[in-house]
Amino acid sequence: HDQLCYNLTLEKKLISLNIDENKLFGICLGVPGLIDIENNRVTTSTVIPIDDNNDFYYYIKNRYNDIPILLGNESWFSAYAEKEFGSGTNIQNLIFIDINIGVGAGIILNGEIFTGSRGLAGEIGHISIDMNGPRCKCGNRGCIETMVSIPAMFNTLTNNIVSGRKTLVKEIIAKNHDRITVEIIREASLKKDELVLEILDDSARKLAFGMTNIINLLNPEVIVIGGEITKLGNVFLERIKKYIEDIQLKPNKDKIQIRYSSLKGNTVTLGGAKYVLDNIFEPGILLDGIRF
Amino acid sequence: HDQLCYNLTLEKKLISLNIDENKLFGICLGVPGLIDIENNRVTTSTVIPIDDNNDFYYYIKNRYNDIPILLGNESWFSAYAEKEFGSGTNIQNLIFIDINIGVGAGIILNGEIFTGSRGLAGEIGHISIDMNGPRCKCGNRGCIETMVSIPAMFNTLTNNIVSGRKTLVKEIIAKNHDRITVEIIREASLKKDELVLEILDDSARKLAFGMTNIINLLNPEVIVIGGEITKLGNVFLERIKKYIEDIQLKPNKDKIQIRYSSLKGNTVTLGGAKYVLDNIFEPGILLDGIRF
Repeated sequence: HDQLCYNLTLEKKLISLNIDENKLFGICLGVPGLIDIENNRVTTSTVIPIDDNNDFYYYIKNRYNDIPILLGNESWFSAYAEKEFGSGTNIQNLIFIDINIGVGAGIILNGEIFTGSRGLAGEIGHISIDMNGPRCKCGNRGCIETMVSIPAMFNTLTNNIVSGRKTLVKEIIAKNHDRITVEIIREASLKKDELVLEILDDSARKLAFGMTNIINLLNPEVIVIGGEITKLGNVFLERIKKYIEDIQLKPNKDKIQIRYSSLKGNTVTLGGAKYVLDNIFEPGILLDGIRF
Repeated sequence: HDQLCYNLTLEKKLISLNIDENKLFGICLGVPGLIDIENNRVTTSTVIPIDDNNDFYYYIKNRYNDIPILLGNESWFSAYAEKEFGSGTNIQNLIFIDINIGVGAGIILNGEIFTGSRGLAGEIGHISIDMNGPRCKCGNRGCIETMVSIPAMFNTLTNNIVSGRKTLVKEIIAKNHDRITVEIIREASLKKDELVLEILDDSARKLAFGMTNIINLLNPEVIVIGGEITKLGNVFLERIKKYIEDIQLKPNKDKIQIRYSSLKGNTVTLGGAKYVLDNIFEPGILLDGIRF
């Protein structure tokens, strides 16, 4: 039954896009969750429901059995898209950090998606920057996800408002919103709201410590920040850069590009499609027209 | 002049080992310092004096110009030795942490030495575990090198002795030593000295936080600890493992091997030699006997 559902969904999608099934080169499945790369299953996902048998990779593989099916974390493919389409030069080592409700990441090393031994590389949300910090739901303390995610910023802001701290955010919400959003924080920061600037500065500093850990371990050319948090704008990015400059190793000075994602649309799809193509094309396959 | 010195040293060494120069397959230079891989120079070393022009790679390359000359950080080659000779299985991702006066590291990813974009990957000594921790000489705060190196342990111990804390270490030194050594700490730990066990526990906990950051970023199969610190013995290693177990991501449970280096002798030389061989051998070169 599940098998039928998954494959009907794919078939319907192809029909709605008017794509002949024989023209598929491969299928890339980008999932917001931990991937068990040995068994092509999803270990856990906090975003989508994963059924017990978790066999969807195999359902799809059975249905489309003459083309490669690739399963990965969605951030891996966003990172690949950034490497291929975001930076314009021959980038070999790039880290993509996706900051939304949670913190995800994709790592490109030596030009390839790096998954680690069991698919658990890039758990940047659980890089700790403070061994004495607040307990994270993962069991560790002071993890980036606990210290710098969007809910973390909202919490700090709310706690300050509740305890009577003055901020423009209160007025902006009162006017025409029912809850805090990233856009409201940005609006208040542009109006130089003191509390909001303090919170941005504190988050930027924390993120800078986490990013410096990544830099000192992997020495990438580029770190790209993506997700909702980029809506905070340059005021946030510039602070991150300033703090990294303060604490980085001297030989890295001015050598590591730190920027927001500049790609539009769904980068998971973009990167996943390019990844399929890059991994199945042997020289000549296009010219031979085997699948056209 | 320098050029002559470097090459005379090599020539003398070959003669003393009774090795015909024509039998060399390559030369691997493992240096305790930061490597500028673009220019084959040493950026900085806190251990050996590096002259201004820092051209020794080129001196040697000119002298032995028909064989490959490889320059790298010594820990890269120790890590390679651990991967090739230390673990016995087909390890693809391994981290070697060398804890002595400083903290060095070598990273093997996908079976290869990983240098990062400019040779600065693996600066594990400057992974921070406490953004509010003590300032490190690198500019960062709470770096592993500041928190867990051997001098760090000696300092903590000395400060406690000076402030009047009781410990067997004082008696052991008084008997037949003139300063604290790792061996003395080990002796006191075996005699259950309370202060020493506290310090070991604290260092193990700090190292566990740093190692967990590495695990969450790179998901290796193996982390090997080498250097003087291994003389502390199993009491130290077991504590590290316990703390990592507490704070690791659930899917990593029991999946990551953490051990001391078991290789004897000079692992830099061992790994460097194997690395040269692995990187210059094309299939058949031995059978063809080109260089014999």
